[in-house]
Amino acid sequence: MRTDRVGARFFVPGPTAVRPAILREMVRPMIAHRSAEMRELLARVYVTLPSLFGTRRPVYVASGAATGMMESAIRCGSRERVLALVSGAFGERFARIAESCERSVTRLVAPAGKTVSAEALADALEHGAYDAVTAVHVETTTGVIADIGAYGRVVAAHDDVMLLVDAVSSVGGVEVAMDGAGMDVVLSASQKALALPPGLSFIACSERAMARAVTLPYRGVYLDVVRMDEYWRQGETAGTPAIPQLYALDAQLAAIGREGLVTRYARHAAMAGAVHEWVSEAARRGRGVGILASEELRAPTVTCLTIKGDAVRLVHLLRARGFEIGAGYGALAASTMRIGHMGDHTVREVRALLGALDYALGELEA
Amino acid sequence: MRTDRVGARFFVPGPTAVRPAILREMVRPMIAHRSAEMRELLARVYVTLPSLFGTRRPVYVASGAATGMMESAIRCGSRERVLALVSGAFGERFARIAESCERSVTRLVAPAGKTVSAEALADALEHGAYDAVTAVHVETTTGVIADIGAYGRVVAAHDDVMLLVDAVSSVGGVEVAMDGAGMDVVLSASQKALALPPGLSFIACSERAMARAVTLPYRGVYLDVVRMDEYWRQGETAGTPAIPQLYALDAQLAAIGREGLVTRYARHAAMAGAVHEWVSEAARRGRGVGILASEELRAPTVTCLTIKGDAVRLVHLLRARGFEIGAGYGALAASTMRIGHMGDHTVREVRALLGALDYALGELEA
Repeated sequence: MRTDRVGARFFVPGPTAVRPAILREMVRPMIAHRSAEMRELLARVYVTLPSLFGTRRPVYVASGAATGMMESAIRCGSRERVLALVSGAFGERFARIAESCERSVTRLVAPAGKTVSAEALADALEHGAYDAVTAVHVETTTGVIADIGAYGRVVAAHDDVMLLVDAVSSVGGVEVAMDGAGMDVVLSASQKALALPPGLSFIACSERAMARAVTLPYRGVYLDVVRMDEYWRQGETAGTPAIPQLYALDAQLAAIGREGLVTRYARHAAMAGAVHEWVSEAARRGRGVGILASEELRAPTVTCLTIKGDAVRLVHLLRARGFEIGAGYGALAASTMRIGHMGDHTVREVRALLGALDYALGELEA
Repeated sequence: MRTDRVGARFFVPGPTAVRPAILREMVRPMIAHRSAEMRELLARVYVTLPSLFGTRRPVYVASGAATGMMESAIRCGSRERVLALVSGAFGERFARIAESCERSVTRLVAPAGKTVSAEALADALEHGAYDAVTAVHVETTTGVIADIGAYGRVVAAHDDVMLLVDAVSSVGGVEVAMDGAGMDVVLSASQKALALPPGLSFIACSERAMARAVTLPYRGVYLDVVRMDEYWRQGETAGTPAIPQLYALDAQLAAIGREGLVTRYARHAAMAGAVHEWVSEAARRGRGVGILASEELRAPTVTCLTIKGDAVRLVHLLRARGFEIGAGYGALAASTMRIGHMGDHTVREVRALLGALDYALGELEA
């Protein structure tokens, strides 16, 4: 199958494919980062971005990767004792970052393909004194989506506990209801369901999170949300932003507005559905393939496939057919692979990938 | 005057003008950040970049702004007591970052247009117990260049004191002799004399700085040079890098190689010389213009001009003529303006700017 859409065969779960029209937005001359022109650009971004986070709070934009914003959430949103909900490598990264910032961390670890239940969270908060809970909305390494709303209701029953959420693989592809679900800090990045090149990351804080942040000493400077807020109030960014990605973000937010969030989220659900359907059908035909995530926990943006046989070789076989997907992550590298069906991909493109995957699985099993 | 070089009239001291050919490098499809293709790209960058820092040590590449790397230098390179050499706003930022990371900071502040002398540094180190000295090579806000070699000789006389250097506005435009001058940590960014868009920052550590880093607790994760080194050893970057800027960096390093560092540095000296000459001549003609930096301390990459009259209005008058320069910074905003004569600019382009500046000064004084 041929396609004229560059990136139509690129299904890595981040960085995701970027449409050529969006890439071309980056080829514009530099502008000063403290200029009127930049403030106009940022004004559009600052007005639009919160809808993707489901918040009326500001969303700050910074140059850098999401790991930096995870650290920002920890340094500015937690005090001493962190309860980390771990359902994959990024949940574990959140926990390690907290430890690296001198927080005492307790982990609740879900089995592979599961999330930590709201009941387990409630129980832990009942029996331990924590001031923050870290959670990952869509865990990119296992393809599970957590019920953040349920977490939010549990956390709301405890005074002075903040809910810090990694929404890296959800913002732009799945509804993120920051205000409605009681999230205190939500972070994301450009190179996932927003379908932009990497280089920008985002963070939003509830009023009470911001009130806590100002009381915390030694937050540093670069990842300090209080400083980000000061610049946001002036319509600027704290540091020199990745200007090409800002141009691209501006254009992409306009395109997302034209598509409509409801339609965009439905498209992601349909892409995930196409993958789930194909796996059931392939399994029925005896192909050695399954889905890691429990049925009720499958993310609309990324699927982690379990492979009977050499998953690493399967990724290479697909590459030979012109399709790029993600290898399994960490301990799951040998037995899983990941399809990022997010951003600007279409159901048709996903089906083309699945066709190629079927052939590649046949080659693997032959 | 007309020119076909986009950016030929953009003289902000960061972000600097980027050549269209380099901007076009960014319009390439995404690749996975853990792929063979990425490792090939990074291999070229990792081999070439150290020559611009004057080091045989690795130069790590990260997504983000230089402020993040300043914080990295502090968190990973200093223990408790920092001596901050301040000759402008970025020297002061280095000091504040150290304070924000729980370091006790003593400042040596030079008068505007001066740098802290090596004698003053020697005296301070003699009379106080410091474990790190922060210095700015080229101070972007005042246009002074510090004698880092002299600082290095002073610091070398003291055991266990690290020299941490902001080389943001020098790397790529002035010789930076990290190993030769005894610098322990050197940081820079993409959007200055490298003439790339913002989005990437760089940091290099001496062996003894790296040996200290591993002993320091709570360095965090995102700005941790030990983690950066682990990924560098695998030929990767710690986080997902700003891929478009990496494409551009790869092409720009090749172009810098073709130009040659000696030629490149000479071109920067010639651009600075053209500015200095014009200012002397304009002053002789009675134009109210001077140079903030003492004659022996003038940076080859940026000049801070003192203006008799409204400097802010002068920037606007120049903009009306199609030329963009930098306003004065902070306390110097009303009385100075800054020309970034760095990156891929030419002496001819600088002269065109100076011609326009002459007219604009005439308008200002009229």
